[in-house]
Amino acid sequence: MTDAPALKELLAFAHQLADAAAGTSLPLFRNAPDIDNKLTDGFDPVTAADRNAEVAMRALIEAHYPDHAITGEEFDNKTGEALVTAFEWVLDPIDGTRAFISGMPTWGTLIGLNQNDRPVLGMMEQPFTGERYFATAGQGAFLRHADKSMAIKTRACARVKDAVLATTTPALFIDTPAEAAWHKVAAAAKLTRYGGDCYNYALVALGQIDAVVEQGLKDVDIQALIPIVEEAGGIVTDWQGGPAHKGGTAIACGDRAVHTQLKDMLNG
Amino acid sequence: MTDAPALKELLAFAHQLADAAAGTSLPLFRNAPDIDNKLTDGFDPVTAADRNAEVAMRALIEAHYPDHAITGEEFDNKTGEALVTAFEWVLDPIDGTRAFISGMPTWGTLIGLNQNDRPVLGMMEQPFTGERYFATAGQGAFLRHADKSMAIKTRACARVKDAVLATTTPALFIDTPAEAAWHKVAAAAKLTRYGGDCYNYALVALGQIDAVVEQGLKDVDIQALIPIVEEAGGIVTDWQGGPAHKGGTAIACGDRAVHTQLKDMLNG
Repeated sequence: MTDAPALKELLAFAHQLADAAAGTSLPLFRNAPDIDNKLTDGFDPVTAADRNAEVAMRALIEAHYPDHAITGEEFDNKTGEALVTAFEWVLDPIDGTRAFISGMPTWGTLIGLNQNDRPVLGMMEQPFTGERYFATAGQGAFLRHADKSMAIKTRACARVKDAVLATTTPALFIDTPAEAAWHKVAAAAKLTRYGGDCYNYALVALGQIDAVVEQGLKDVDIQALIPIVEEAGGIVTDWQGGPAHKGGTAIACGDRAVHTQLKDMLNG
Repeated sequence: MTDAPALKELLAFAHQLADAAAGTSLPLFRNAPDIDNKLTDGFDPVTAADRNAEVAMRALIEAHYPDHAITGEEFDNKTGEALVTAFEWVLDPIDGTRAFISGMPTWGTLIGLNQNDRPVLGMMEQPFTGERYFATAGQGAFLRHADKSMAIKTRACARVKDAVLATTTPALFIDTPAEAAWHKVAAAAKLTRYGGDCYNYALVALGQIDAVVEQGLKDVDIQALIPIVEEAGGIVTDWQGGPAHKGGTAIACGDRAVHTQLKDMLNG
């Protein structure tokens, strides 16, 4: 048993993970990636980039922190061995595979770190645009772009009618019990945008959009994004106002006031 | 009256226009642009970037080609004086203003050139990602990215069921006579993506997506994109198969086979 590494050290390591993921994913972007379908009855493309980036990140974690747990999108979870430190890396090598295979630069590599089941670090890497969003608990949120890092902050938005709202696709809601609720909030917002995947959450942290509403998320889709939004001044919960890091539904907002309104509308 | 400038000279000049537009729009991107509403009953944001970029491009055109006509998104049209050359620049300084104000890098500056009412040059500039797509009649289509230029080609796609289909937003169709037709093609495609504006057409030219279907376009929204898609090997028409450069409806495809199928489905 060794002392738990400091968050600062773990953030530096997360940058290494993002570099490794970018090195494997970017050469395959817009380059006829090897696509197959996970589901026989649907379209859930997985690219070589997805697998290669996760392999690269797992290898680094196992080399540097062999006692840390790993939860990944593409491979079986690895249980951590050090119950005292209880660190778990949560990896989604390509969040937004549909954007990736369409040539749209709105996908990202998500790297989260939980300590004792609580998100303490989040990173979202978009190598084509050269953007990397990251945050650690209590230390604020940052965007590194073109070799410059800047602290980022959400923006104020008190009312849904003034909000720019985003979600990945209306297909998340159509023919589900939440369809009517979604249409209600989409119609109430000043502007509703589709597309975006993880990029939407980063834009909440950056103070460019006000809210993301989604459902059907996996834990790996959301965990890394929670520290980024919250350290930038925002809030992420499920639709009932509880923790969102296990996946399912999510409301991510830059301003608590609009979050409360959206939560009430979605449940009203 | 002077001799008509060669297309090669005009392409070099279009690059100057795109540089000028980028120089005025990019500093305002994600930088609290000055937003107001064009329509009192809707949300049609116009940014300072939009106006400044058009002013910058118009000034260059008037300085270099004072007898060319100008059709722009933001200001009154200028009628050309040289009927023999009959050149008309068609400018949309920020296509995708909703993407722009949401911080999404999927907007673009559109620069088109018509000769005798026929599109002969098209350019789409995305300064945040550093992408510039351009084409001139008979000379192919190109993408310049990170100071490298490459010829681009559409990809083969024979059937709608194999197609990646994109449109800017389902709101283009909802509560219009075309709503049912849109739902039919959206359900038939392998993958349907929302968001994108002009960027979707560029991705058709790049061979990353197979089709864009839209309606309610203005001439400035589409003219610059037609040479880019067609010189890359694709086809752009209205939903009836006629010319699309006056705006209205559009089907842009990389492969004529899928274009024919989509046209039949939209009219069937």
